Amino acid sequence: METSEKHRPPAMSAIIRLADKRDVPHIHRLIHQMAVFERLTHLFSATESSLAATLFPSSSPSPPFRSFTVLILELSPSPSPDLNPSFTPIVREVDLKSPISDPDAEAFASAGGGDGVVVGFVLCFPNYSSFLAKPGLYIEDIFVREPYRRRGLGRMLLSAVAQQAARMDFGRVEWCVLDWNVNAIKFYEEMGADVLQEWRICRLTGDNLEAYATYDRHHG
Amino acid sequence: METSEKHRPPAMSAIIRLADKRDVPHIHRLIHQMAVFERLTHLFSATESSLAATLFPSSSPSPPFRSFTVLILELSPSPSPDLNPSFTPIVREVDLKSPISDPDAEAFASAGGGDGVVVGFVLCFPNYSSFLAKPGLYIEDIFVREPYRRRGLGRMLLSAVAQQAARMDFGRVEWCVLDWNVNAIKFYEEMGADVLQEWRICRLTGDNLEAYATYDRHHG
Repeated sequence: METSEKHRPPAMSAIIRLADKRDVPHIHRLIHQMAVFERLTHLFSATESSLAATLFPSSSPSPPFRSFTVLILELSPSPSPDLNPSFTPIVREVDLKSPISDPDAEAFASAGGGDGVVVGFVLCFPNYSSFLAKPGLYIEDIFVREPYRRRGLGRMLLSAVAQQAARMDFGRVEWCVLDWNVNAIKFYEEMGADVLQEWRICRLTGDNLEAYATYDRHHG
Repeated sequence: METSEKHRPPAMSAIIRLADKRDVPHIHRLIHQMAVFERLTHLFSATESSLAATLFPSSSPSPPFRSFTVLILELSPSPSPDLNPSFTPIVREVDLKSPISDPDAEAFASAGGGDGVVVGFVLCFPNYSSFLAKPGLYIEDIFVREPYRRRGLGRMLLSAVAQQAARMDFGRVEWCVLDWNVNAIKFYEEMGADVLQEWRICRLTGDNLEAYATYDRHHG
């Protein structure tokens, strides 16, 4: 027994925990990797300081899931207990099956210390359904770094948000997907989601939004 | 002069003001009318009490536009000053051109008193762009009652939200439109919005969401 066990890859735990300000450099890098994957780097202008100011404001912090909320997914051979009282971390043994080659492992060493490495994240916030008269959770980002995909970790992140919404008696979890991302669509449908085909997103931004700052003066 | 003026329709003001708990019965009726228009009454389950509890919680009220926020649009020949200090009402003289026949005028008499009649509303809340590292405003509902359409009132409601977002240095205003609603799409594009063709909304709700409440136990 002992002889055969020492040839196995080390046991690993996947941990989903609430992010804090120390995670900002990793969050910044993860969002940039996501922009590359989505072919949308021309829209990327986040900086570490703008992320810190908007995601972790020192004034008026809200309870998690009542405003912008980031969950961090990390892998660790020795998970340490997280003492944040507002979200109990989700810890799960994972079987990585094969060793993972991660060239960015050092850059993504967990801010929480120990041997953890950050492998993904989810950013969500409350939305509202007036038909249901209930809040929901909207997932703005869900992302697992490339070397760690196809191992059930994206499923674990999405399930954590769904579980939270169900426990809070929220009515829906919603997010968006690019229509060419057929793998993602298949995955989401397997998770129980409907893909709404009739709705389109409208966006007012940049100069077209700025123009409304003086709306009163021009039309009032 | 006096002789000709007395034949004109009375001067009317359109007022956009922050909703409060007294507006709940009107908000409920407006949301139901919207569900009828969108052919989605099968999804409608809001009640006055569920709306009151979720839109106007007595505990932890947030400043407007930092959580779920409803603006009411009313018409009045004699607008009275609204003393709510957190949102200065937008008041604008409107030329209705022709008299309006409104069978529901009595049911929609303003909760604020006076001669006002509620003709529409907008429900919005903050969302977040991680690419911009900025909050935005998401418009869940924007609605003008049927007799009052095609008079610039929808434009006034959308502009009020855009103005608020621009003033708060938010990055975007976003909302959804049904792809068959070509009049709305044309109107939104004229307002400066882009309609994103590639994105689809994913929704996890009902039993499929409930199933995640016990996720830990089944998969942990």
